Amino acid sequence: MTSPSAIQDSYPYQNEPIWSRSEKTIARKAFDAALGRELHEVIQEAKKMASQIQQPSDLWDLEYYLTQRRKEIDRKYDFRGSRLTDVLGRLLYENRLGEEDLRGLPEEKMKSIRSFAQFLRDGAA
Amino acid sequence: MTSPSAIQDSYPYQNEPIWSRSEKTIARKAFDAALGRELHEVIQEAKKMASQIQQPSDLWDLEYYLTQRRKEIDRKYDFRGSRLTDVLGRLLYENRLGEEDLRGLPEEKMKSIRSFAQFLRDGAA
Repeated sequence: MTSPSAIQDSYPYQNEPIWSRSEKTIARKAFDAALGRELHEVIQEAKKMASQIQQPSDLWDLEYYLTQRRKEIDRKYDFRGSRLTDVLGRLLYENRLGEEDLRGLPEEKMKSIRSFAQFLRDGAA
Repeated sequence: MTSPSAIQDSYPYQNEPIWSRSEKTIARKAFDAALGRELHEVIQEAKKMASQIQQPSDLWDLEYYLTQRRKEIDRKYDFRGSRLTDVLGRLLYENRLGEEDLRGLPEEKMKSIRSFAQFLRDGAA
């Protein structure tokens, strides 16, 4: 039999950062703005690719582009509290957000977000 | 042990129609023309859909449309001899081919092709 203390020890989210309601509001606004800009880019690129289609292979290139971008966007924009620090860090790293978009978040969270952006910069170098 | 006659009895293609080289040439020309016309239609539709994209859902509608059309075209345009009668019959049924495109095929094959087109008409009625 599993004892209550064993359950508590295996609880996987004990180090998950807590996001207050007001912090989530700030994060949501920045997140939605970045998502909107990224979707706008994909729309513009799809219109351009479609207007230049000359042969069937161009058509399937467009399909492949859209599928890849949809999957990438689905993966990237994950608003769960357990993922939010990394998600915002990645958007910062990709210049889809500026620090000014996150104004109002406590310094401790900004540190974690910046730190993940730096981690990605180091990995790309 | 499997005897040679058992192998012969289980040979699955014994009733497959034989397509001579000249018949295949006629079929190929009609098949390629129908495929070209269908791809041209998809290209026109994709350009139109892309030009009308206003919001992200329109973008993913375009992706879905392209994926469905690609799969449908892959399934439909199968040039194997064992499938060719049904494939040409379907193209006839869909008005993607006229009988004049198949001029030169022996009456026996035309009968089978017409018969499959009629089968599809009956199924759709």
